[in-house]
Amino acid sequence: MKKRNATARSRREGSHYRLSAVSARFAFEILSRAGRARRGRLHLPHGVVETPAFMPVGTRGAVKAITIDAVRDLDADILLANTYHLHVRPGDDRIARLGGLHAFVGWSRPILTDSGGYQVFSLAARRRVTEDAVVFQSHLDGQPLSLSPESAVDIQSRLGSDVAMILDECPSWPIPQTDAEAAMERTLRWARRGRARFEALGTAAAAAVTVSTPGQAQFGIVQGGTFLDLRDRSVAGTVAVGFEGYAIGGLSVGEPTATMYDVVAHTAQALPEAAPRYLMGTGTPDDLVESVARGIDMFDCVLPTRNARNGQLFTNVGRINIKNARYGEDQRPLDRDCACYTCRTFSRAYLRHLFLAGEIAAATLNTLHNLNFYLDTMRGIRDAIAFGRFESFRIAFHQRWSRQAVDS
Amino acid sequence: MKKRNATARSRREGSHYRLSAVSARFAFEILSRAGRARRGRLHLPHGVVETPAFMPVGTRGAVKAITIDAVRDLDADILLANTYHLHVRPGDDRIARLGGLHAFVGWSRPILTDSGGYQVFSLAARRRVTEDAVVFQSHLDGQPLSLSPESAVDIQSRLGSDVAMILDECPSWPIPQTDAEAAMERTLRWARRGRARFEALGTAAAAAVTVSTPGQAQFGIVQGGTFLDLRDRSVAGTVAVGFEGYAIGGLSVGEPTATMYDVVAHTAQALPEAAPRYLMGTGTPDDLVESVARGIDMFDCVLPTRNARNGQLFTNVGRINIKNARYGEDQRPLDRDCACYTCRTFSRAYLRHLFLAGEIAAATLNTLHNLNFYLDTMRGIRDAIAFGRFESFRIAFHQRWSRQAVDS
Repeated sequence: MKKRNATARSRREGSHYRLSAVSARFAFEILSRAGRARRGRLHLPHGVVETPAFMPVGTRGAVKAITIDAVRDLDADILLANTYHLHVRPGDDRIARLGGLHAFVGWSRPILTDSGGYQVFSLAARRRVTEDAVVFQSHLDGQPLSLSPESAVDIQSRLGSDVAMILDECPSWPIPQTDAEAAMERTLRWARRGRARFEALGTAAAAAVTVSTPGQAQFGIVQGGTFLDLRDRSVAGTVAVGFEGYAIGGLSVGEPTATMYDVVAHTAQALPEAAPRYLMGTGTPDDLVESVARGIDMFDCVLPTRNARNGQLFTNVGRINIKNARYGEDQRPLDRDCACYTCRTFSRAYLRHLFLAGEIAAATLNTLHNLNFYLDTMRGIRDAIAFGRFESFRIAFHQRWSRQAVDS
Repeated sequence: MKKRNATARSRREGSHYRLSAVSARFAFEILSRAGRARRGRLHLPHGVVETPAFMPVGTRGAVKAITIDAVRDLDADILLANTYHLHVRPGDDRIARLGGLHAFVGWSRPILTDSGGYQVFSLAARRRVTEDAVVFQSHLDGQPLSLSPESAVDIQSRLGSDVAMILDECPSWPIPQTDAEAAMERTLRWARRGRARFEALGTAAAAAVTVSTPGQAQFGIVQGGTFLDLRDRSVAGTVAVGFEGYAIGGLSVGEPTATMYDVVAHTAQALPEAAPRYLMGTGTPDDLVESVARGIDMFDCVLPTRNARNGQLFTNVGRINIKNARYGEDQRPLDRDCACYTCRTFSRAYLRHLFLAGEIAAATLNTLHNLNFYLDTMRGIRDAIAFGRFESFRIAFHQRWSRQAVDS
């Protein structure tokens, strides 16, 4: 784990963003800027996250198809895990008894947990939303469950993530403005209740709740669909509650890319300058670059891991579909500009063979490459901001990379 | 890769078993003995194999659920690959054009390829056996294919394994003696044809066949079911043809364990003392120990890898079924006497969670452990023979380990 010595930390103290004694182990530094893009450093109980950061998705406490050591070797600073999945199985109570999520999965760096809201709205059966809570059935065995703003806090406290998210209502797209407004307003009311519960953790009022990671931070979530005035009201209300960081939710749910970029730009600018900004569930490599340009510091997305398992690979010259017959005897690495294990070791011909043969190693090797591509992209972004050449990086990135499959 | 210096090698030259100029890069040394058990060293074009050896099964040029580097890190000396599967897809012609199997899969140590006979008899559709060849349909797309004693040699020459196997007819159990005799006699006739073709490789008579690994060795296969007189005749006939090594086929096909041990003991003793002996497709950990005690030098089996994917784990105190509810909060490693990555890093509780969640990492971590258990068992066997304590090792092994699930 990366450690910074106390002297270095105290010298920079003045630039740290800290909210309250509740999250005394949380701080966010902005080291340099390029337009609205920021190069920062997030201090969390389990270590430091260099931003802009991409968080690999470890849904059930494992990144699909690779070991946790491989995630560390890819030099990811922070892992995302899913509250809903871990609550349903093996249970947050069980994980707390086993010492928390870090000990359970063998990951000593920071973890961010989502609130479970997104999965409840997309996965759970017989869902009923009331003001108090969402009542639903487990997607595994139909067991009746519920998630409230308070229980989402409690579950994440037991899991012991470094960053917990508030429970939000995340509508799909398109949606009438009145519905978007109702979801945004409910999210805001839930944010107040979630923050109150979060601040009560470790006190007599929440004595029954295990605090697996002291100093956990909590992020609010801005909703409002693609309606900029709703986003403004959501920002104002969420910031009034006060969180260590702010996420933009309700995007990457089907809206056009240009619309998403506009909402990101508008919302990021409205958020407090000193706090970290997290764009949830996004996106393609160019979405990352464009969202950083609009002021985003953190990302998560299943795209690199899910596409890897489907044979869709991201490279410095575009997407490759490894199934393509043209790779049958292609001795070149997937991406000649990539230093990952897969590209150092195997030919496109072998990767195609593994994929067509249905070998598990295909999923593993493809995932290693795609995640490395995403993490390399973030490293490139961070260096570009730090060295004052983000705009030229951005142009060069788009020249090299497009959404189209290249299959070169 | 392990290298021995030339001086050490030449000093031992007198004890080397070498057959002919055809296989000038092949040699087998017997370093020490314990009863019928032998501690040996097999010299092959791609390196040295310490025997008794277990060969992890890499059916399609990949050991299921782990990367080829993980197989190397487990310190396996030799990999087994399946001729039938690689012939069907991606094709031995393609692999030859890509530089042979070693380059294709990224494995620089020795490889043994089976002949494809076993898979033709167990997998292929509409199989028709004639004296000339087996005609069948691909299990993938119904494409008509055939395998003859000669084409099995050619395919393995293109693949470029270090050890090629002759095409044999492998009957199931039980089988009438007349059928076992017919299969044994045909295997013998095919052995003569296969050896003739093997000796023609690299000459004008087989000029069209790529020799991907000069100095490839060829092993004969003894058949005869559980009939000891048939085994005797098969040994005599196969040895009369003359091969670098000899395999015992047609066991682990359903016969009782005691019967298998008797056939192994009888057949191994009948085989030439100086040549390596390979028991095909066997077996459980105690089968390995007992077969070494009866004179076997080489093994392959899908048991460690297949069982791993089913959650059946081999440990120093017996088998563990990781699904078992009793492991739900078990913080202990799978096997406290195992130094593999899985046991060094994860609890039984986490491994159970990964398995129940259907995570690919479950297959990976379980496979790493089971293969390490098998390779550790072979390391223990080799040390025990070398240090003159094989009998006490054997007794201690059976005291620790049994066929029953322990679930301790």
